[in-house]
Amino acid sequence: MNKILIFGVGLIGGSIALSAKKSGFASDIVGVGRNQDNLNDAIKLKLIDRTSQDLKKDISEAHIIIIATPVAQFPVILQLIQPHLSSHTIITDVGSTKTDVIESAKQILGPQYSQFIGGHPIAGSEKHGATAAHIDLFKNKNVILTADQETSFEAKQKIEMLWKNAGAIVSNMSHNDHDKIFSTISHLPHLLAFSLVDMITQRKNANELLKFAASGFKDFTRIAASSPEMWKDITLANKKFILEDIQLFENQIKLLKEAIEQEDTKKILALFENASKTRNEWSK
Amino acid sequence: MNKILIFGVGLIGGSIALSAKKSGFASDIVGVGRNQDNLNDAIKLKLIDRTSQDLKKDISEAHIIIIATPVAQFPVILQLIQPHLSSHTIITDVGSTKTDVIESAKQILGPQYSQFIGGHPIAGSEKHGATAAHIDLFKNKNVILTADQETSFEAKQKIEMLWKNAGAIVSNMSHNDHDKIFSTISHLPHLLAFSLVDMITQRKNANELLKFAASGFKDFTRIAASSPEMWKDITLANKKFILEDIQLFENQIKLLKEAIEQEDTKKILALFENASKTRNEWSK
Repeated sequence: MNKILIFGVGLIGGSIALSAKKSGFASDIVGVGRNQDNLNDAIKLKLIDRTSQDLKKDISEAHIIIIATPVAQFPVILQLIQPHLSSHTIITDVGSTKTDVIESAKQILGPQYSQFIGGHPIAGSEKHGATAAHIDLFKNKNVILTADQETSFEAKQKIEMLWKNAGAIVSNMSHNDHDKIFSTISHLPHLLAFSLVDMITQRKNANELLKFAASGFKDFTRIAASSPEMWKDITLANKKFILEDIQLFENQIKLLKEAIEQEDTKKILALFENASKTRNEWSK
Repeated sequence: MNKILIFGVGLIGGSIALSAKKSGFASDIVGVGRNQDNLNDAIKLKLIDRTSQDLKKDISEAHIIIIATPVAQFPVILQLIQPHLSSHTIITDVGSTKTDVIESAKQILGPQYSQFIGGHPIAGSEKHGATAAHIDLFKNKNVILTADQETSFEAKQKIEMLWKNAGAIVSNMSHNDHDKIFSTISHLPHLLAFSLVDMITQRKNANELLKFAASGFKDFTRIAASSPEMWKDITLANKKFILEDIQLFENQIKLLKEAIEQEDTKKILALFENASKTRNEWSK
């Protein structure tokens, strides 16, 4: 039975806490956060057992420390825990980008980097905060861990167990592969959706356009309602791969534009058929 | 009470038939289509009263003719009905583009163009065919009519009534305004979604990418599962405005790319905040 210390008891942190407790994986769960109302909610909802009254003690006694705050706070939290870290404590995170997190962890934890393993649960919701947490959030969802040669066997084993107890499907890959993959399937679509909505707001007839926008637009732009702060951080953290993907997408759009200009029916149809077939098969 | 002749008794045509009958707007509804199984379904489901045994007679006796087939068939159908058209018959359509349809109608119907009024119900579904038809399909949905100076008062009045009886919110605008608006809020998003999925299929690791794609990708690309045939027609029919919108989107992406290259946090955040605010307010 594990003692777990969670920084950031929101949707993700709270849901991990809930499943760790219900599955018997954790005995004592301590929550840390900047928002006292949210921590009170987390206690009322029994996501955590208590808040920390003595952070140094809770850090040194924790079997697992989970960092589930916005990514920008990670370095500060790593610096906060590092002096009090015992040799048996495993640290993990839930950030959407991994190269930047791993670099911080290596730099700040030094020789204790072996106790750190990066994580990214591919689950979420528009909702946030402790009140949005629920035990099925990770059920049958992918969780990516980014263990490398320096990562200890204990770190890999323990964090894999943590996620499997939450019902997740655990994969391991390099932080580089992670960031390259998510640039294409997550970060690029977000940037395209933000860009389309921003473009529309610049039109004189923006209100008329939005009045007639229907369900296709609604789904396409749902991710444009995401947190600007969080996505600014992701965009800068994954700059290299995102710029590569934007370039590839620009090439793709250029080819389509040329096909339309030339009324190249065959090429346009081939592109749409390829996309439609892939999308239909994927959703099965 | 109106006699209605419908070409294409699918999701849209079938749903109009259903509401016209239930509301008492139509007495006799005759269906025409290439797919006999679909027509049999339409009779069984009581969407239509019968199929046509004498098309010339049914054309000449109809109060309203609705063309609800794929847009590519419109000119052939207009040519088919034109010789038998009485002076009291009103013709309308449900196509996603309007300039091409109006041009066909003017050319083929000649002086009887005044009896034609273009229409576009902003409603649909991934499902199609008579079995997908339902009476609430147009309830509180926008329907755009594109009457112009030549359109008769009777055409405007009758088709507005047809849609209001189906629960729709009816607006009128020029075919040009229609095609410009829908290029931005519907056609462009479809092309972006098709392009993203097509781009992913070209990657060596396409299967791995799709394996980790989650709910954001799912919603963003839902419209990439749309009919390639239909969207090829729309793209070519609305070529002019679509090319203008692609150009504007390319400029938009170029600005974002430069902001990312320069790590211009302020500019990136402003763009995301603008989009997020607009999208959140729109969905309320």
